[in-house]
Amino acid sequence: MFFQRVKTQGLGHNAYVLGCGNGLAVVVDPRRDVAEYLQLARDNDLSIAYCIETHRQEDFEFGSASLAELTGAKILAGKHPLFGRVDVQVGDGEEFTVGTTRFVALATPGHTPESMSYAVYPEDAGDQCWGVFTGDALFVGDTGRTDLSDPEKTAENAGLLYDSVHQKLAPLGDQAILLPAHGAGSACGGNISERDESTLGIERATNPVFTKSRAEFMAQKAGEHLPRPPYFSHMEVVNLEAGRPVPASPDDRVLLPKAFQERARGGIVIDTRSPDAFAGAHIPGSYNVWLKGLSTFGGWLADEQTPVFLVVEQPAKAPLAIAQLARIGIDRVEGVLVNGVEAWREAGLPIEALGTTSASEAARWNEEGDLSILDVRDDMEWKEKHIPDAHHTFVGHLEADLPAIPKDRRIVAHCSVGHRSGLAVSILRRNGYTNVFNMLGGITAWDKLGLPLNRNQVE
Amino acid sequence: MFFQRVKTQGLGHNAYVLGCGNGLAVVVDPRRDVAEYLQLARDNDLSIAYCIETHRQEDFEFGSASLAELTGAKILAGKHPLFGRVDVQVGDGEEFTVGTTRFVALATPGHTPESMSYAVYPEDAGDQCWGVFTGDALFVGDTGRTDLSDPEKTAENAGLLYDSVHQKLAPLGDQAILLPAHGAGSACGGNISERDESTLGIERATNPVFTKSRAEFMAQKAGEHLPRPPYFSHMEVVNLEAGRPVPASPDDRVLLPKAFQERARGGIVIDTRSPDAFAGAHIPGSYNVWLKGLSTFGGWLADEQTPVFLVVEQPAKAPLAIAQLARIGIDRVEGVLVNGVEAWREAGLPIEALGTTSASEAARWNEEGDLSILDVRDDMEWKEKHIPDAHHTFVGHLEADLPAIPKDRRIVAHCSVGHRSGLAVSILRRNGYTNVFNMLGGITAWDKLGLPLNRNQVE
Amino acid sequence: MFFQRVKTQGLGHNAYVLGCGNGLAVVVDPRRDVAEYLQLARDNDLSIAYCIETHRQEDFEFGSASLAELTGAKILAGKHPLFGRVDVQVGDGEEFTVGTTRFVALATPGHTPESMSYAVYPEDAGDQCWGVFTGDALFVGDTGRTDLSDPEKTAENAGLLYDSVHQKLAPLGDQAILLPAHGAGSACGGNISERDESTLGIERATNPVFTKSRAEFMAQKAGEHLPRPPYFSHMEVVNLEAGRPVPASPDDRVLLPKAFQERARGGIVIDTRSPDAFAGAHIPGSYNVWLKGLSTFGGWLADEQTPVFLVVEQPAKAPLAIAQLARIGIDRVEGVLVNGVEAWREAGLPIEALGTTSASEAARWNEEGDLSILDVRDDMEWKEKHIPDAHHTFVGHLEADLPAIPKDRRIVAHCSVGHRSGLAVSILRRNGYTNVFNMLGGITAWDKLGLPLNRNQVE
Amino acid sequence: MFFQRVKTQGLGHNAYVLGCGNGLAVVVDPRRDVAEYLQLARDNDLSIAYCIETHRQEDFEFGSASLAELTGAKILAGKHPLFGRVDVQVGDGEEFTVGTTRFVALATPGHTPESMSYAVYPEDAGDQCWGVFTGDALFVGDTGRTDLSDPEKTAENAGLLYDSVHQKLAPLGDQAILLPAHGAGSACGGNISERDESTLGIERATNPVFTKSRAEFMAQKAGEHLPRPPYFSHMEVVNLEAGRPVPASPDDRVLLPKAFQERARGGIVIDTRSPDAFAGAHIPGSYNVWLKGLSTFGGWLADEQTPVFLVVEQPAKAPLAIAQLARIGIDRVEGVLVNGVEAWREAGLPIEALGTTSASEAARWNEEGDLSILDVRDDMEWKEKHIPDAHHTFVGHLEADLPAIPKDRRIVAHCSVGHRSGLAVSILRRNGYTNVFNMLGGITAWDKLGLPLNRNQVE
Repeated sequence: MFFQRVKTQGLGHNAYVLGCGNGLAVVVDPRRDVAEYLQLARDNDLSIAYCIETHRQEDFEFGSASLAELTGAKILAGKHPLFGRVDVQVGDGEEFTVGTTRFVALATPGHTPESMSYAVYPEDAGDQCWGVFTGDALFVGDTGRTDLSDPEKTAENAGLLYDSVHQKLAPLGDQAILLPAHGAGSACGGNISERDESTLGIERATNPVFTKSRAEFMAQKAGEHLPRPPYFSHMEVVNLEAGRPVPASPDDRVLLPKAFQERARGGIVIDTRSPDAFAGAHIPGSYNVWLKGLSTFGGWLADEQTPVFLVVEQPAKAPLAIAQLARIGIDRVEGVLVNGVEAWREAGLPIEALGTTSASEAARWNEEGDLSILDVRDDMEWKEKHIPDAHHTFVGHLEADLPAIPKDRRIVAHCSVGHRSGLAVSILRRNGYTNVFNMLGGITAWDKLGLPLNRNQVE
Repeated sequence: MFFQRVKTQGLGHNAYVLGCGNGLAVVVDPRRDVAEYLQLARDNDLSIAYCIETHRQEDFEFGSASLAELTGAKILAGKHPLFGRVDVQVGDGEEFTVGTTRFVALATPGHTPESMSYAVYPEDAGDQCWGVFTGDALFVGDTGRTDLSDPEKTAENAGLLYDSVHQKLAPLGDQAILLPAHGAGSACGGNISERDESTLGIERATNPVFTKSRAEFMAQKAGEHLPRPPYFSHMEVVNLEAGRPVPASPDDRVLLPKAFQERARGGIVIDTRSPDAFAGAHIPGSYNVWLKGLSTFGGWLADEQTPVFLVVEQPAKAPLAIAQLARIGIDRVEGVLVNGVEAWREAGLPIEALGTTSASEAARWNEEGDLSILDVRDDMEWKEKHIPDAHHTFVGHLEADLPAIPKDRRIVAHCSVGHRSGLAVSILRRNGYTNVFNMLGGITAWDKLGLPLNRNQVE
Repeated sequence: MFFQRVKTQGLGHNAYVLGCGNGLAVVVDPRRDVAEYLQLARDNDLSIAYCIETHRQEDFEFGSASLAELTGAKILAGKHPLFGRVDVQVGDGEEFTVGTTRFVALATPGHTPESMSYAVYPEDAGDQCWGVFTGDALFVGDTGRTDLSDPEKTAENAGLLYDSVHQKLAPLGDQAILLPAHGAGSACGGNISERDESTLGIERATNPVFTKSRAEFMAQKAGEHLPRPPYFSHMEVVNLEAGRPVPASPDDRVLLPKAFQERARGGIVIDTRSPDAFAGAHIPGSYNVWLKGLSTFGGWLADEQTPVFLVVEQPAKAPLAIAQLARIGIDRVEGVLVNGVEAWREAGLPIEALGTTSASEAARWNEEGDLSILDVRDDMEWKEKHIPDAHHTFVGHLEADLPAIPKDRRIVAHCSVGHRSGLAVSILRRNGYTNVFNMLGGITAWDKLGLPLNRNQVE
Repeated sequence: MFFQRVKTQGLGHNAYVLGCGNGLAVVVDPRRDVAEYLQLARDNDLSIAYCIETHRQEDFEFGSASLAELTGAKILAGKHPLFGRVDVQVGDGEEFTVGTTRFVALATPGHTPESMSYAVYPEDAGDQCWGVFTGDALFVGDTGRTDLSDPEKTAENAGLLYDSVHQKLAPLGDQAILLPAHGAGSACGGNISERDESTLGIERATNPVFTKSRAEFMAQKAGEHLPRPPYFSHMEVVNLEAGRPVPASPDDRVLLPKAFQERARGGIVIDTRSPDAFAGAHIPGSYNVWLKGLSTFGGWLADEQTPVFLVVEQPAKAPLAIAQLARIGIDRVEGVLVNGVEAWREAGLPIEALGTTSASEAARWNEEGDLSILDVRDDMEWKEKHIPDAHHTFVGHLEADLPAIPKDRRIVAHCSVGHRSGLAVSILRRNGYTNVFNMLGGITAWDKLGLPLNRNQVE
């Protein structure tokens, strides 16, 4: 029985290709660029019969429509109207069979109203549930956020989710393998484990949705304040149509430095190199989003209309950078400067540098008093622990919050390890702040060195 | 938490690379060519701290010694003397910690006396066992063969294995993920599932070691007669030293047809193309072992002293063919004819062809009476079902059993689908049989077409 | 100075990516699937400024329009109206500069009326011509065929070509590197060298266009009878628009055996495995075209309207098979049976086999008289040498010439080594011939064994 | 006829694989890691018959011995005793044939006393020379340095070289393709063209060895002062034995930050990231050598006894970094920190940063007077043009020349574009200089911006 989790880095997304017997396969929650699923099918002699959707994803664009067109597969989902384009609708408790494998559809609302889970019973695994595709209902160590459909009803939805998990999933048994739509790094959960493999039994012993009471759980979820990137709204629209194909011709034109400089005036420049390289030298006015963070943080900087110009570390990375933006619906990449920072410099075009610092040096400066510390992590991370007297603004909101940041002091920005603060210092720099430093190693290093922290118990 | 099963096709072998926290990893039961493990470690920024062995494998050569030398890892195994080269010995019930992950060693004899399992407790998975490396004690849907250490004691060892599973593994709980050393296609179990993912709970409901009584289980195992390839003895010796490195210079010299013809006189020719291509045209006297079967069936044809000359379908496949033999300790590949069947023909060198047939045609011939059907599957497959009046000899024993095969009749060889019968007809051909056919599709097609079969209930 | 010949196997086609200084590059005669050129540009930090066309290619579909759209490059060609979509037109003798590299356009008609060559003068190579893109005017060891525009004027066009080469190319000097649009295996020349590297000086000493007189050359070309695959007409139309993009969604759906069987009724099945494998076992009614021959011989079997169903040896080869057809404008691949001959057999679906034979065996049969030898090479090859009493029909014309082939005798088909005769025997087989053999090794082996041949001096 | 130049970046080295007919190939001047040659041979169905050496290379370690052992090839070279291990010795003017290809050996001393060239006459290229392997006698646009055997005799050897080129190579004709052992970036020539493709005719019109008189040429060569990296001496020894195999087990152990820090105390740390990333943050005391420069500049920092610890940008680059050192005989890489600068920071381990600046900013500083400019290019580059009042020391000699560099001023280091100055600032930093800046864009940007330069006519 072929089975493969296909992870999409940067989105913390899991799709699954599952062989179902008789040469048929299903793909669960495919992302927009589907070539990898097609190749897995080909390599394992599988014909894709269904694209199964657990819910209308908000954080990435679906590839269901593409897969359906390319392979003749049918799109299968629940009956809720938030599933738009669906070929086969299944209701709560309904069974269906693909090849020799039986599935039971389970309505598991809470993360969103339409959320479905699918319990899987392969022919040779007996009467018990072998595994369950849970979408964003149940993650390893966490549950889906419940604020998306209506922030006012975060707690109420959490109660709904609690019931879904306890009434629909828990009865499947400890032995069932957990197959969620997201892993660590997703914008859809605040505290998903770095471990991908789990079972319902392991979750029953460790996951807050099981270890807390319903009321405690509702309170916890109500207290979560996860950022909601602006591109989510666009995804909600396009996913009603099961996603759009990746543009036939991703415009990966290599631009020479002068042409890049000229055209980029009509858009934004995103430099995907590491925060160190960006600090060392970069194009004035560019944003810094490290390559793997592009799907998550690109959506805070650009929308589907923004002309984007990319700086990449190496040519081989350009297609990945373009794909990462396409996965969240941003298709207007109008130029790439590959290897080109070098050509840029040799052309005598202007460069800028930024400061970097370490936790120990920053602590020394802090004692000397000449410093404003800016923490750009999200609310939950801030609540868990933070440097005393630091100023907190989530990096996605920084551009809006600039009036609160003083221009006349040395600013040391940090996040957990240094990537998001790389974006933060690039935002400060392009807004006229000159005395800015990225604290590499972040609060992780600060903590390891035993430097002072305020720790607030997270509920 | 990084976790990756690394499958070795042809051996049905699973090794595992497990990230244990703090940047440390363990590799469980590594095969001889270790580059893939090293790359996984590098790609995930992991330092390999331990090579963990579940038992002295018989069916492939260990890479533990190589990994230890290359990375500084320590070899960890049980205290039984059948583990030879070990840096860290752990006894039954003993705990050890790597990074932030706790392991409990469990003596689980039965397959072999020294067999160990290792229960794993990652930091964030609570007090319950997350998964268990079971070696050849417990497979998905099956258990390790119990005839290897002493065929006389097959039943007795099966009882021992039954107790190991029930007393040591079952108590770990339904939620524990099963991580065995072999999957389908292994020579170490007769009926391992094609499905790789399972949990103890799923096994408890479906695996014969759980669904049968102790006595029934002993009887079943006693009735199993799995072939024991001759190279196993060599593996037992070299694995006492935790395996040898792959030769620095795998001798993959490309030979021109005439040189190949000349030198091959001092050894054997193995043609790794598909049975169809072999049937279409091949070098007289060559054996046919399809590429993925080389680790399993190469060990019936050659030992560590045999000069081997390979015919491969495409140049890119030569390294894999050489690796497959190296994995079972056969290093004397002294020439490769790549793309070269073509060059061979163009040189006017002699070729031979063989007949192929389908199940329906063979059935027609059979009715007409002019036919001897030769079934070369193993004993268990034969017992389960076979064509009436067929002659049965396992392909590994065919060369020895030739006196029993008539030379004057048309012989149709078959196995389950056509690969092993490809080897069988090549053996017949090189021994002077001329009227031989490979029944492509095998008994699988025969059965699907509803042709007559004797079915013997397997216990 | 970056310079790379990009060969397209099967078409014997050369495109070129040439760095021209200042980060600019040109691509000469790009094929339809342009990803490889884009990657070379990216990897070498080059911006593609021009797609240069030497003539309206007939044997493959251009990628100029795609490249122009993807990169902003301009299409540069001559002024003749047979160049349709052109952004920059250059006349005979006109100069243009890209980056720091100077080009001189040269009208070199003969192969076709519009044919242009482009002499290249890089900055650091002095005043002499460094190299010249000759399109189909001058190949290594050969010249472009002159029958395409009007078979009646083959000799006349040859005279024109002779003048182009002597008056326009020869004056560039012995030192100039020859950069033609085709190498060995092309349908555009009959006798192109297997060697890709040459200079005008080497050609001057060896190429018939130089070693023969004008009259001799005209006579030679008039005597050439090269096959003209039917898809050429389609290429002439689409290349007026500089080619079409590869379909966004190459339909590479994996079909299960029964679905494949059913749907394939509405189209043709092309089996891309080796002739040996095809001979060993194949789907009844399928054509056999070895993978690398698909661009050349697929165009004799299908046109842009034909639904094509592919059998491939391994999944990884499916995209290449689909690309090879797309390169000649055949986009309706509606199903792929990957790995699937095996699944086909296991499903009990019918298979057929074919005979193979060697030159020595065929010669023996021939002496015994019970044989009709069918030579399916092209006219030039036949003229050069052939087996006495063989029947000659070019494989592309075989289906039309079947009435001339007796059904009641044993037929041994051959070509030079066995690929085209593989196609031939598949054609015979699907037309009801049962006693057919592919003579593997072909006339090459026959010749090496010293068997009798009629040798006719080729002019 | 298969022909492939195999470039080794960083060494500016060309090896060649040439198919010679009858399935035989030669490899000319192979580097130490030979896998790429073996693969080319396999992929093109070629048996390597000879490793041909043009001279005892000084700048990289030979792979001839390895290839000979792996493939059975024979080592062919000249008769001079500076060729040590040779199987087949050929004298000046001697012919030999491989397959259907004729070679003529030509003694072409000057670069070194033993230097040989080999003129090639493939079967189908007529009586003229098709191409010539010139080793370090004649490059594209340059000739081999003549100071290596005895710096006192630089001019005298130049005369010898002049005669070799004029008397032995020129007569081969303008049409002959030039196949030298090095291209741009080599330490064996000062001014080799970036263009790889040339012919003797093109050289005759442009190369100083042709455009100058013998006396002028001798004077020019006498005036060249190319750096001679210390590892050259080691190469001279090992290449007498035709090179050693790459160690079976390149020790690429992944070290965790603390282990790396500890062990690295016994050796040197080389950070192979870009100069920007190094400037942004690096491990105190580390050298910065960009990845592609490792073969050239690693040899100035380490010898075959030095334990080396590598920092690489991405895991996939580690094997290349290790190979680059192995190619110049440095095998003691004892640890790699992959991805690990991040882990390093998160562990709170100390980091350092460096300044970067642009040409325009540096010019501004310079006007303000508070600056010492350090030019670390080689002598020839310095002579050609330099910034007024800059201090010049070749980067390879910087560590020895530190006493001449003031510690109390701001130092801006530059080279041509910023790589070698990256190494220079890292050297300064680890020697206690704190106020150091790397001028990114180098003198190239300075020149493009029209800033003042002293230009000294190079002879």
